[in-house]
Amino acid sequence: MSATNYSINGRIWIETHEGKVLGHGRVELLERIHVTGSLRQAALQMKMSYKQAWDLVKHTNTGFTEPLVQLSRGGTGGGKAILTDKGHQVIAEFKKIQKKFIEFMKEEENLIKI
Amino acid sequence: MSATNYSINGRIWIETHEGKVLGHGRVELLERIHVTGSLRQAALQMKMSYKQAWDLVKHTNTGFTEPLVQLSRGGTGGGKAILTDKGHQVIAEFKKIQKKFIEFMKEEENLIKI
Repeated sequence: MSATNYSINGRIWIETHEGKVLGHGRVELLERIHVTGSLRQAALQMKMSYKQAWDLVKHTNTGFTEPLVQLSRGGTGGGKAILTDKGHQVIAEFKKIQKKFIEFMKEEENLIKI
Repeated sequence: MSATNYSINGRIWIETHEGKVLGHGRVELLERIHVTGSLRQAALQMKMSYKQAWDLVKHTNTGFTEPLVQLSRGGTGGGKAILTDKGHQVIAEFKKIQKKFIEFMKEEENLIKI
């Protein structure tokens, strides 16, 4: 909380000329995929349908030069999902920017005059 | 556009402990109120109903120490709406932060490594 009662909040995301490719929600999905090793589990945790999560990952993969998640259909629990090296790198980059963004908001919050 | 094909986009808003009090959309509504002098015209321009705009302004007014818009019901064209000095000040402050936020995003866009 700032000196006043006002705080600044916000969201950032990464775009290409075709639109949004990565934001807060997708990063969370990718991280849950990494932890669980399962798209179905990750989807469940985020209260998404399996199809929604599948489509989101497919769409995210096409937004980058290499896939962020390697997907394989079928098998017990709905197939495997593995976060690639590129996936790890992109998440780390997003979090670095997100951290600076939070610092930016804190600084502005302390300067706010309303 | 950055050296890569990725750009950073985002939104910021101002909150109190009760939630969001001002963001991009509300600032646009306030500016349109100022230009037109009419809540009905401002609402029309933003494809909102008169009631939606009225409720939004009422809610926004309660978020600050003084009202940002002075509203009066009735009369030709649905009553008058005047942006107060406080309204002008808050808009200016938001735009100052928004400008710095755009600079922040540009800088990060040039540093992005994905």
